[in-house]
Amino acid sequence: MTAPRRQPGRQTQARIVRAALTLYNRLGEPNVSPNKVAADLGISPGNLYYHFASKNRLTETLFAAHEQQMLTLLQTAPEVRDVEAAWFVLHRMAELMWHARFVYRSQNDLIGRSRWLEQHVTALIEAHGQAMLTMLEALHASEVLRLWASAKPRLAQAMVVVQTYGLSYAYARAPRQALEPEAENQAVCHAAAQVLALLQPYATAPNRTHLEQLLQRYDTLAT
Amino acid sequence: MTAPRRQPGRQTQARIVRAALTLYNRLGEPNVSPNKVAADLGISPGNLYYHFASKNRLTETLFAAHEQQMLTLLQTAPEVRDVEAAWFVLHRMAELMWHARFVYRSQNDLIGRSRWLEQHVTALIEAHGQAMLTMLEALHASEVLRLWASAKPRLAQAMVVVQTYGLSYAYARAPRQALEPEAENQAVCHAAAQVLALLQPYATAPNRTHLEQLLQRYDTLAT
Repeated sequence: MTAPRRQPGRQTQARIVRAALTLYNRLGEPNVSPNKVAADLGISPGNLYYHFASKNRLTETLFAAHEQQMLTLLQTAPEVRDVEAAWFVLHRMAELMWHARFVYRSQNDLIGRSRWLEQHVTALIEAHGQAMLTMLEALHASEVLRLWASAKPRLAQAMVVVQTYGLSYAYARAPRQALEPEAENQAVCHAAAQVLALLQPYATAPNRTHLEQLLQRYDTLAT
Repeated sequence: MTAPRRQPGRQTQARIVRAALTLYNRLGEPNVSPNKVAADLGISPGNLYYHFASKNRLTETLFAAHEQQMLTLLQTAPEVRDVEAAWFVLHRMAELMWHARFVYRSQNDLIGRSRWLEQHVTALIEAHGQAMLTMLEALHASEVLRLWASAKPRLAQAMVVVQTYGLSYAYARAPRQALEPEAENQAVCHAAAQVLALLQPYATAPNRTHLEQLLQRYDTLAT
């Protein structure tokens, strides 16, 4: 009888992905070489290149994992019919974006990195916009929001911009703190609050009050 | 009598600034070396370094010119008391940001470039936020907008994010077109419309209609 295979190759690949994500988030994707990831893990550069033939392959793998999580979350948009559900989706999205903050910190660089990244970054932004529009339609149909027709696409776009660049804004305001791991709670709460606040002026009376309560809770958590 | 001095040094400096701005905007600041600027102008690298001792000095000079124009415009915020005035300021701001789009395309890179740039980028963002808050107070006092107290800082922040990252968003959606010179009219109209749209749900009835007219005119111009 043989012992179960431990698949050391798979384990190494997962360790590389985890270490690269940490370094990308901390230093910015353009500032991390595959050799730095290998050194951080204490493995040889050759071993890393065996799993990822180029830095672009590594970056694409990390982006694909984030994309998958985002698309799964965005699929729930048609079921968002009350303030709590909107709050849950928007908070969860802020968390996902924080955990892959290297994407949003260097988005323009990633777009120029490879054709694959250009296409996938662009496609994710479009899917995001479509999902926000779907969510707004659902909230309008449930009379949580009162939206006139031309307001819907404009509000959906503003939501995407505020979500996508909320971290860049926080970074520009406080470059030495905003993207450090300790800032996580504040950053996620602030990002979620900023996008919920966009909905508030369109909310029907009891929902506007409910949103104000959530926003005030966020203000407390984010300071 | 001597002929008036032609100050060839000053002329060269102005030509360097113009050429660098064009190249930064087209290729992104991180991708333009001083040698490239010199080659573009047909002058020697030594001549360029005589005027700008380092690439950072050149980038700082270009940023300072944009900063000065922005601060002058932002100072008019307290006088914004109707929809036309708000429209004028926000449209003009979109134009200024377009003409220095290298700043917004590579904001995170610039922050890491020098202590001077970090401080000035951060200070401009703060001044921008303060001016938007002042503008909202003025529009509220004139009963153009009806804003509850907690909505003002949130809306001011959303305005800054949408203005600052509107070009990054356009670039992420269409990387091969969005920042090219031909896209200017569309980009400026779209950026101005996006931020005016944020004000609309807070506008009192006749002003909301006025904003809708402006937004529809922008929709026509931007396509």
